[in-house]
Amino acid sequence: MDLSTSLTHYRTRIDRVLEECLENLTFQSIPLYKAMHHGVLLGGKRMRPFLVYATGEMFGIDPKVLDVPASAIEYVHAYSLIHDDLPAMDDDSLRRGQPTCHIAFGEDTAILAGDGLLTQAFSILSDNPMQDVSDKTRLAMVSELARASGAAGMVLGQALDLQAEGKTLDVAALETIHRHKTGALIRAAIRLGALSAGEKSRQYLPILDRYAEAIGLAFQVQDDILDVTGDSQVTGKQQGMDVAHGKSTYPGLLGLAQARTKAQELYQEAINALAQLEQHGFNTQQLQALASYIVERNK
Amino acid sequence: MDLSTSLTHYRTRIDRVLEECLENLTFQSIPLYKAMHHGVLLGGKRMRPFLVYATGEMFGIDPKVLDVPASAIEYVHAYSLIHDDLPAMDDDSLRRGQPTCHIAFGEDTAILAGDGLLTQAFSILSDNPMQDVSDKTRLAMVSELARASGAAGMVLGQALDLQAEGKTLDVAALETIHRHKTGALIRAAIRLGALSAGEKSRQYLPILDRYAEAIGLAFQVQDDILDVTGDSQVTGKQQGMDVAHGKSTYPGLLGLAQARTKAQELYQEAINALAQLEQHGFNTQQLQALASYIVERNK
Repeated sequence: MDLSTSLTHYRTRIDRVLEECLENLTFQSIPLYKAMHHGVLLGGKRMRPFLVYATGEMFGIDPKVLDVPASAIEYVHAYSLIHDDLPAMDDDSLRRGQPTCHIAFGEDTAILAGDGLLTQAFSILSDNPMQDVSDKTRLAMVSELARASGAAGMVLGQALDLQAEGKTLDVAALETIHRHKTGALIRAAIRLGALSAGEKSRQYLPILDRYAEAIGLAFQVQDDILDVTGDSQVTGKQQGMDVAHGKSTYPGLLGLAQARTKAQELYQEAINALAQLEQHGFNTQQLQALASYIVERNK
Repeated sequence: MDLSTSLTHYRTRIDRVLEECLENLTFQSIPLYKAMHHGVLLGGKRMRPFLVYATGEMFGIDPKVLDVPASAIEYVHAYSLIHDDLPAMDDDSLRRGQPTCHIAFGEDTAILAGDGLLTQAFSILSDNPMQDVSDKTRLAMVSELARASGAAGMVLGQALDLQAEGKTLDVAALETIHRHKTGALIRAAIRLGALSAGEKSRQYLPILDRYAEAIGLAFQVQDDILDVTGDSQVTGKQQGMDVAHGKSTYPGLLGLAQARTKAQELYQEAINALAQLEQHGFNTQQLQALASYIVERNK
């Protein structure tokens, strides 16, 4: 399967699972539910679920088991987008070519929809059946997801990002923001996929972390590049918003050519980590293809 | 120990534990951390931690073990207050006689501080040592807390409450709001205390639920009464805010005298549930005292 087929395959799968997780809620006719649905099912690349599936299947885990961490991660991602878009935060009215949650449902409902999705992620991880996964492993998943999402991870990254607006950062400070704001959840996606295999994946976590950190940062460098060079018809985002918000970016700090070199270096670092896994007999084809996609994408 | 001594004892204990949970975070000098600290350590009655300790100790559980669910519950409660106070929600500038989080730190940091506290609750439950508590039980705690807090519990209650503003509800609709908005987390506090005892508390959960539902609703009826009759110097809240927000209340729907009768009936229902536990040999003195306090308090 080439990456595009594989991404579509997993996206179709996760979209169905994400919808099923919402169907368990009562009061489906109220705005809260509709706003949660809007946030989760607006589409998107589903990169984090892809990473859960691709990593878990590398260890021979049934996709049915991986549905659980994949949907939990995507709920956290969806909540973070809703809260990041709020007027008090990035104040974005458009995402993926659609009105953002607070534009469609009001700010109060958008805040609550985010809160509801974040909390639901932990319901998903603790309630849904996962064959052959021990309670210990599942608890480790809760711990991993909470650490990556909260005030030591993604929430911290967003706070550092807000503080940095209007200031010129150096590259190290910019990387600290991205490692927390987007990197932590990407790393958690890969770790949750691996953790589904229990103890037998534990020794490979450091290598997977290297891969995760490289693609996480590469994703952000490419995002910054697309904010400068992208076509808003293709990206579904307003172009030039980083500059408009006074945000430091890789092209801004390094210039466009150096930013592209940086993305290539990170790509190579990711591929090197995967080569180590290949030596242990794992098929890393899907993770390789994703690394390529991240630095080559135009949206 | 009388209730006042006992409340002070547990409050002192939980305040220390809540602070310790924050100390594990890095970046302690940034506004996010200060806002989380403000939200968690602003004070308050600590009723939910009290319920965890009182219920758990009834089953012979060490308070050191109960620190974990007690602090997790209080983090969720603190997050909910921060988000409820936001301009887009209840727009409150004063809580417990102090500026609310968004007044003190700005709306963006307040939203993130709430997100951080909610997430941290799940880190606390999954990471902290709990002697003799199995992974299975701990996972049940995660599940219980998530269900009570999220879009099937507290978040749903807040959404229903916002939708009801400016409308006249009947008593049944008002109770549906309160059962979710405040009742679910009170019930979870009691259940987490009981769950700490593992399987041996399971058969008593239905009785504890009856107690929880009665005091949860009684707490709200008394809150509504205090909004009418309370002294804002004592309550630390602006008086008459329910009416100002066009909210339905028990005194508004039933009249003040009938609302007081309702609180008394719920108190009696709680005491009856505890009498059943006494028949099984449990000492329910602290839970009895709390039920009295809830309907007699003036703040």
